[in-house]
Formats: sequence, C-alpha cells, structure tokens
Amino acid sequence: MTTRGMTTTRDASIDIEVDGMHIAGTMVAPAQRLPGVLFVHGWGGSQAQFLARARAIASLGCVCLAFDLRGHALTSEQQDTVTRDANLRDVVAAYDVLARHPEVDANEIAVVGSSYGGYMAAILSTLRYVRWMVLRVPALYRDEDWELPKRALHKGPDLELYRRRVVPVEENRALRACAAFKGDVLIVESEQDMVIPHPVITSYVEACSQARSLTYRVLEGADHGLSDKASQDAYTGLLLGWMNEMVFVPRKERPVAEATELR
Amino acid sequence: MTTRGMTTTRDASIDIEVDGMHIAGTMVAPAQRLPGVLFVHGWGGSQAQFLARARAIASLGCVCLAFDLRGHALTSEQQDTVTRDANLRDVVAAYDVLARHPEVDANEIAVVGSSYGGYMAAILSTLRYVRWMVLRVPALYRDEDWELPKRALHKGPDLELYRRRVVPVEENRALRACAAFKGDVLIVESEQDMVIPHPVITSYVEACSQARSLTYRVLEGADHGLSDKASQDAYTGLLLGWMNEMVFVPRKERPVAEATELR
Repeated sequence: MTTRGMTTTRDASIDIEVDGMHIAGTMVAPAQRLPGVLFVHGWGGSQAQFLARARAIASLGCVCLAFDLRGHALTSEQQDTVTRDANLRDVVAAYDVLARHPEVDANEIAVVGSSYGGYMAAILSTLRYVRWMVLRVPALYRDEDWELPKRALHKGPDLELYRRRVVPVEENRALRACAAFKGDVLIVESEQDMVIPHPVITSYVEACSQARSLTYRVLEGADHGLSDKASQDAYTGLLLGWMNEMVFVPRKERPVAEATELR
Repeated sequence: MTTRGMTTTRDASIDIEVDGMHIAGTMVAPAQRLPGVLFVHGWGGSQAQFLARARAIASLGCVCLAFDLRGHALTSEQQDTVTRDANLRDVVAAYDVLARHPEVDANEIAVVGSSYGGYMAAILSTLRYVRWMVLRVPALYRDEDWELPKRALHKGPDLELYRRRVVPVEENRALRACAAFKGDVLIVESEQDMVIPHPVITSYVEACSQARSLTYRVLEGADHGLSDKASQDAYTGLLLGWMNEMVFVPRKERPVAEATELR
C-alpha cells in the first residue's frame, strides 16, 4: 500500500500464460472498491423484477447482483420440490460470486430481499458477512420441516395462523438472525398486504434489537407484490434514499486512508 | 444502460454454480471503468523496477500491470535463447490479461516501455489497441533475424553501427508501428545514454508523424538504466505529469454520457 496520490493501491500477483508457459506479473489497482448489493426475489418472482432497481442503485456507485432462485425462471420445473435449504444455498452461492467480484469490497455487502427473499436474506446474515439488510414484506416460516419442499409449507391453515401472531425471537431462525444482526436495517411493509400480515412485520422489527440503525416504513396503498407502478416507484425511491444515507454518503465522508482498513 | 443517477451502468449475465447445478444471474456495475497501464521492462530488467511507479500511477485512478518477460526473473535460464518473437507474445499475453480485467476499460490502455521494452511497446501497438504510448530510451533492432535469440543480435559491431544513424521509417518494424500510431506519445531520452545513441531517439521521434500529440523530453544527467535516484524520480515525475495531462484530466472533464461511447 502507498499513500502517494489520491488513494491507496493494492497489489495482486498474477500468473500470465503464454505459449503453454507461465510468466509472473503484478496487477496494481486503486485500493478502494465498490459496495456490493445482492437482490433476493420472492417466491414466484425472478431477477427480472429487480433489474431496473439494480441499475438505479448501481449508478450511485456500487455493483448489484440479481439472480433467479432455483424453482424459478429457467428452473421453474423444480418449483414443487425445491426446499428452503436449497434456496438458501442459492443465496449463499450468489453472495459468494458477488463478494469475489474484483470491483466489490467484500466488507461492504448489502442484501435486499422481498417476501420469501427477505426471509432468506435475514438467514444469510448468519452465514456470510452482511453490512446492510433490506427486508421488504419479509415472509416467515416455522423452523420445522426445513427439508420439506417450500410449497408443502403452505398446505393447511397452519402457516397462516403462525403469521397472525408476533413470534418470539428465539423460536424462529430468521428472527434469531435479525436479533444477532448488528448492521443497518430497512424494513418495508405494504399497507394492503394480503400475504404477510402486520404481526410478521412487527416480529421482524422487534427482533432487530442490536441493529446499528433501524428504519421501518409502510408503503401506503401498496399490495404485497407492488403490482401498481406508483408503489414500485415509491419503493425504489425509499430504497435509493436509504442506500444513499447508509452506503454512499458515509463512503464519501470517510477519510481515504480509513477506507481500506474496515473490518 | 440507464442514465439515472450519476453514471451509466452495464449489465453482465452470469452463471452461478450451486449443488452442481446452475442458476442465472445479472451483475450490474457502474459503466465507467479505469484506464489500464502496461509496463514493459528492458533487457536484463524485471517487473520489480516498475512497482513503485505503478503504484504511484494506480493511485491516480487506473489499473497497472508490470510483468517479467521470458528470459528474466524466474525464467532467466532462457535469457540466451529467448527471441523477440517470444517476448512479443509475452507482451501481447500481458496486454490481454490487463484488457480483460473487469475494472479496466479496454479502450483506455497505455503502454510504458523502457529500452527493449520500448521497442516491444511500439510493435505491440500494431497488434492491440493502444491509446497512449510511453517509450523511454527505446532500443532499435534490424527487422532481420527476428527468430534468432535476442542475445545473438548483439554479436559483432553491426547493431551498434545500425544505431548510429537515423533509420528510415519504412525499413524498421518498430518505426513503422510508430508511424501508424495515432494516439499520444511520450518519448524520453537519457542525456548520458551509453546504450541508445541519440540517432535512435531521433528515428522514433521522426516516425511518430501521425501521433495525436508528441512529447519528447531529455532527462538531464541520466544514464540508460536510470541508475541514480534523482534520475528515477525525474522520470517518475515526468511520467505522472504526462499521464495526468493525457489520461486523468481529460477523463474528469469528459461528460459522463460520452464516457461509455468511446471507440
């Protein structure tokens, strides 16, 4: 590292293949990398829903990754059989791809999940380092039957009843994850949500007791899937404003020398 | 591409492997990448000579690559046998690694070569896109015997005589490369150079007739290898100032929308 000029740099030794042989090289790049943002879609959704939002956020100066959970888009034939466990591995695999991207600072990863994706995002924070967490209308499931197909969890009235009461933190994996999370949290509720009742949101909000900051907002008139354009825009605006406050403004204000010493 | 926010973005479709299966993803990153700078050392040198300079330049906001030509450092056992052709393939391989780096804008590559490396850098510009070219005390060899070991070219008085006259552009591969080059050129001579006589520098300067800009400087009191610290510092200062003028200031002044449309 050098402090000459406007920023510090990082060296990486590389191997260059030529004529079946190898020569040694050193790549020197500015030390400061970009934050990474992982988008996790909800059940029945796909990465496509997030692309416009991902581009808007990336334009602020970060790298975004949206992807299709197994059981969706090209693998929708697995929708009846895919388990939470498999989808959680999807989320971890996507996180790892994002964190290894050469432009991304692995100490500055945000995860943004909707509904089932919010539930997954919360649990991800116990498996990988997450600095910022956005849970929009996060779903909630009992810990039991973890290996059952996700779809089977919706059989009978049990799940709906489970979501009608505030769930104690200690009895739910996603809530325990939130309780242990020490980064910044944005929780977004839809006022007209017919899928995720208010007590679920309350369970999540109450669980985030150790968060560095907590922002809880309700999108007025919005339904669960943000089916109208006005609600989509309201969410995008909310997300951009929060990301700007939490991620981008602090980066600009941070002394350059400190930027490479985090975590 | 979107124009929302402070910069445009670029999408890249990616494949995420999980459990031996594949899920689809899209990585969205800011469109603006960094210039890349390739350093090509002279005969008997190594990448190590360039690292401090590479870090100083990278700190201005670019990605630098220094590497060891075959016949040097870890492959010095090939010094008696390596040919110009093999070393040129080394340079091209290193260029390709730099140009493919995700942080690098392949339309903004500078090559900086010293002595034998300057000769190689000039020829590289006919094989790959080079936007800026720095030739410090560039060497010159007859086109003949291209496949002979580089060391064999120094047998007898012929090479020394060749370098005592200004060489017509059309009879030399490196000079023809300079004559076809339309980017910005910096040529640096050492006042006390006992290896590369003044006519060689004149040959290069005269060859650069189509360059967008030409900067020719003599380092006072410097020898061929910049053996004293003052000469090294003078060269670093010259290089940084030129890079700043040619590469970094124009980037800052360029409208953001234009930045992704070059070439």
